[in-house]
Order: sequence, then C-alpha cells, then structure tokens
Amino acid sequence: MSVQAIAWSPSGAVRIVDQRALPEAKIERDLESGEAVAEAIRTLQVRGAPLIGIAAAMGLVTGTRELRAGPRDRFLGRLDELARLLGATRPTAVNLRWALDRMTRVAAATPSDWGGSGVWERLQAEATAIWEEDRAMCRRIGEAGLPLVPDGAKVLTHCNAGALATGGIGTALAPIYLAHEAGRRVHVFVDETRPVLQGARLTAWELGHAGIPCTVIVDAVAGSLMRRAQVDVVIVGADRIAANGDFANKIGTYPLAVLALHHGVPFYCAAPSTTIDATLADGEGIPLEQRGPEEVRTVAGRPIAPAAAAVLNPAFDVTPARYVSGFVTERGLEHPPFGDGEERGGRR
Amino acid sequence: MSVQAIAWSPSGAVRIVDQRALPEAKIERDLESGEAVAEAIRTLQVRGAPLIGIAAAMGLVTGTRELRAGPRDRFLGRLDELARLLGATRPTAVNLRWALDRMTRVAAATPSDWGGSGVWERLQAEATAIWEEDRAMCRRIGEAGLPLVPDGAKVLTHCNAGALATGGIGTALAPIYLAHEAGRRVHVFVDETRPVLQGARLTAWELGHAGIPCTVIVDAVAGSLMRRAQVDVVIVGADRIAANGDFANKIGTYPLAVLALHHGVPFYCAAPSTTIDATLADGEGIPLEQRGPEEVRTVAGRPIAPAAAAVLNPAFDVTPARYVSGFVTERGLEHPPFGDGEERGGRR
Repeated sequence: MSVQAIAWSPSGAVRIVDQRALPEAKIERDLESGEAVAEAIRTLQVRGAPLIGIAAAMGLVTGTRELRAGPRDRFLGRLDELARLLGATRPTAVNLRWALDRMTRVAAATPSDWGGSGVWERLQAEATAIWEEDRAMCRRIGEAGLPLVPDGAKVLTHCNAGALATGGIGTALAPIYLAHEAGRRVHVFVDETRPVLQGARLTAWELGHAGIPCTVIVDAVAGSLMRRAQVDVVIVGADRIAANGDFANKIGTYPLAVLALHHGVPFYCAAPSTTIDATLADGEGIPLEQRGPEEVRTVAGRPIAPAAAAVLNPAFDVTPARYVSGFVTERGLEHPPFGDGEERGGRR
Repeated sequence: MSVQAIAWSPSGAVRIVDQRALPEAKIERDLESGEAVAEAIRTLQVRGAPLIGIAAAMGLVTGTRELRAGPRDRFLGRLDELARLLGATRPTAVNLRWALDRMTRVAAATPSDWGGSGVWERLQAEATAIWEEDRAMCRRIGEAGLPLVPDGAKVLTHCNAGALATGGIGTALAPIYLAHEAGRRVHVFVDETRPVLQGARLTAWELGHAGIPCTVIVDAVAGSLMRRAQVDVVIVGADRIAANGDFANKIGTYPLAVLALHHGVPFYCAAPSTTIDATLADGEGIPLEQRGPEEVRTVAGRPIAPAAAAVLNPAFDVTPARYVSGFVTERGLEHPPFGDGEERGGRR
C-alpha cells in the first residue's frame, strides 16, 4: 500500500506530508494559504516534479478561497499574483509551470460575468482533476513499465520518484509497486541521493511502508554493484524532458546513466508526458537549479565540512538522450524525439 | 603548510589528531596503549592506508614500553599479541600488514641474548623510520606527480589521501601541495565521500589549512563536472594495489574511473610502493571491508534512513588497471604489472 502524499483538508487547506521530517516522523501539515504552499515547495516540505505541480494548483485554490465572495477582477488579480509566487519557487521541473498555466487558463476562460465564487469552483475542480489525472497517469506508467520488472528483478533507482513525489504510486517506482502487487519478487537498490537524501529518507521509507524489499546504498556504490552484475535495470524519474529526449533529473542521474551504458545495464526514465517540454530542442535549454551551500556543508544542523569551504550544489543534472534505453510514460514505452509524433534517437 | 597527523607524545604515547572530530574541532589524543591504538584505527580516529601502517608500528612501541625491563620471551610474546590485535583492525589496506610484519621481523632479528629493553629500542627506531620514510615517500610522490598539476589545473580527488592519511604531505594531494608551493594556481574539487565524509571533513579542512583553493561537491556531481570539461585530471590514493595494477580504494573510486575514461579525463592513482601487494595477481583477491549499516543510516546520530532499512556498506571498491592512466609512486610514474620489472597494461 503506497503512501498518500497530498490531499485536501476538511477546511480546504492543502494537506501534505512534511517530507523534511521523514523518516523520523510522519507529520501532516495543513497549508492554509498560497504563501504557505510556496514556502513548502521552496523548502522541500513537498517535492517531486509531479507533486509540486499538484501542490501549486491546489495552492491557488486554497489561496483564493477567501476572495470567493468578491468581484471577478479582484479574484483574478490575486490568482495571478499567487501563480507568479508559486511559479518562482523552483525553476527546473516543468510540471509546476504546466499546472499553473492550466489553472490560469481555466480561470481566464470562465464567462466574464462570473464572480469570484464561480471561478473558484472551476479552479477547485481543475486542481482536483490535475491530481486525479496524475494518479491515473502513475498507474498507467506502472503498467507500461511492468515488463521491465520481471520476477526476481533487481532494480536500482535514484532520489524519490515514488508516491511521495506524485499524486499516486509514483513514476520510477510505479512499475515496482505494480510488480509487487502482481506477486513478483522485486529488490530495489536505493541510492541515498545526497545532499537532500531523498532516497534514504523517502524512497526507503515508502518502499518499507509498502513491504517491498530494498537496500539503501550511498550513491558511490552503484558502480561496483553494476560491475558485479547486481543490477538488472535502472529506473529514474525526470523533472523536465526536452524534445530530443535529453532530460533533467536529480543530481547523480547522469553518472548513473554513464555507468549503466558502460556495464550494459538498461536505463529507463519514467515520467508523465506532462514532463516533456517540447519548446526546448535539447537539454542545454533546461534551467538547472543551484541550491545553497548549507545543504552540503551541514547534515541535521551539524557541520560536515569547514564553514569556510566553497561548495558547488547543483540540484539537477542533464542526461543526454543517447544514454536512455527508453521513456516510460502513461502512453507506453516511448523514444524521442517528442512532439512531432516521429520516433528516433536514444539508446536502443 | 600541511597538517601533522601523527607524532610521539613526550611520554612515548602515540599522539594523533582525532579525525572523527574534524572539521568541528582539532582534538589531539595521546594513545597510551596498543589497545587504544587498535581502537583508534578500528573507529577511524586515525585512517588512511599509509597512516594506519605508521600508527600500528608506533602502537607496538607504545604498547610494549612497560615490558622493557622484562625478559625477552615475555616481551616478544606481548609484541606478537599486539601485532595480531592491530593487524585485525582493518582488512583492506596492505600497509598495515606490511608495517606490522616489518616490526616483528626486526624484533625477531635482534640477538637472542637481548632483553626487552634492547628489542624495544630497536622497535622504537624502526617505527620512527617507517614514519620518516613515509614522509619522504610522500614528498617524492609529489615530485613525481608534479607534471600532472600545471598552472591553472583543476584536479578532482576522492576521500582523503592527504596529510591526514600519511606521515607527510599525502599521496594524491602531494603533487597538489608541491604545485601550490611552486606558486602554481591549482583548484581542487573535493568529493565529499559518503558515508564517512573524509573528503568534506578532512580533505577540505587540510587544503583550507594550507590555503589551497577547493570546492566541496557531493559525490554525484563529478559526472556533470567532467561532462562540462571542468576537471583536468583525477588523482586518488590506494589502499592496496595488485600486481596487475587493479587497486582498491575508497568506495566511489571505481565509478569515478569509469566517468574519467568516458570523458577522456586522465585518471591517476598515487601511492607509496608499499601499497603494492605483489602476492595478489589481480584485484579479485583484495579483501574488501564491509562496514556496519549505522554509518549509512545515521549522520551525527540522527537517522537519515528508516531504522529497519537494509544497508549495503562496502568501504572500498576495486578499480581495474585498464582505467588507470598511471600510478604515481615514490619511484616515479609507473605502469603495471608490478613486481617483475616489466611495464605493460593499463590505460595509456
């Protein structure tokens, strides 16, 4: 049984599992304003490309609920303000932009004589639809990826592209959940994923929660595991996929892809098609978030490097399409380019 | 000015810098018995292949000093007991075995009518010689590796193969110290090196101490740095080198070697020739230490993974000789095989 990462609270707030507290504690937090949702995204209380899209859409609803009784102009003004705030929280995941655009388009398309109340109800329905569509997409990604996880499979994954990163059963982890549901024996090697440790903290936690066997490793172990033929397949998520199939994902994905190619291990990227940004020809155009040095220099508040040490802390890297065996989306197993219907390129 | 990692205390104890406390505090600790030295090696208060060899040799001296006045047999019995204890602390580094064997051979070779006092004095001189020879070897390794670090060089290193790992200026860091001394501008990318974080805690600290510019990165960043041509050369240390040039070093060295080969970045291993174990044909025979799960599951006492999570925690991996551009030893730049005087193999 996978964990539920997001929901509406009874009062209409955005209820999240505060992912900073895991695995020590599962703390549910009700975010009562758009600002609170923006802060939660920025501080990684809620993270994962699909999930931050859902959270942002829901945040627009929660953040405008007090203006329901007011005039249309005031409502739409506040909506735009919140959409800008939420859109500026994190730069790399395209799902955030996509969800906010979809919400503001829906609002703009309402009849011009509708007041705040009518627009708000449409937004509420749209945010819920975004969430439910994501849940359904996760399941279809799982079905499309199921052949990659036969009985006895040893799968390696990086970061967290699971239930805690989506509205449903995840992207990279979706085929694993479905294989487990189908009674297949699966073992997952979980990269701890420094610096924020989403693998050790989140993926190991949610797989344990679901009863799926896994082993946590530091990121530097993957290479020797592959050399000793201990990994059958690598499956990772994505934060943004360019038209040619280059994709951005958590820092450490690119070296994994190189290692997989070097050792002949299949390497798949699983993501909803909403992660594809067809406006970008290739990975060079993807904005890559640089985060602060403290995320590397301290763990749990304790210094692990000299306070004066310079730090380079890119949150993401870009993996060129040629390293990727295939993309698992809700439409099936795909190969780039994306956007013109024709398939070519990538590692076969 | 590099830091001094080991010394005799005025009372004849082994004085070490407790490397667990760095970079928060520089704590010098006087180890007053052989057992205390064994415990310090086992718990990584003192670590680094050359340094644990020196510490073990010095530990034999400190641990037998109270038996100086006694008969030869009792002295040698205690010496053997301590050598076994010290030899069992860590399995991978060959320098530990080498230093202990050298000490026990010296003791055995003393005239049979010598009592504890005479043997002890020979051992004291021998341990000091091992330390001083290591210091000289570090300097010669630095000189041999100096051409790898021209003005403006960007060097990437892993773990700590510096002053804190040796009796002198290190192995992998020795060419960097000498390049800096010579006025060359050098920049070092320091892999933090999970799980024990010797890079972030120790290498960044000792380079900062010496005024050498460096940037700490999580281990997963190295791949994208190389892809963007930000790394001119990789230099790492070694814990044991087989006759064919396969070598064991800190976990994460092998994936770095694969990435370096993939990106055309030269990859060097720097170590004293005492690290070569000519009795092993290849890397398959090198014993690789597996350490406990808590080293991965907790940082600074705080859980970063579920308490029930399975963990695989190999301390070392093996890099096959074909990935290595060259070995920098005190004898110069070398290529395997080692032990028969003939050079062939390796990556050229």
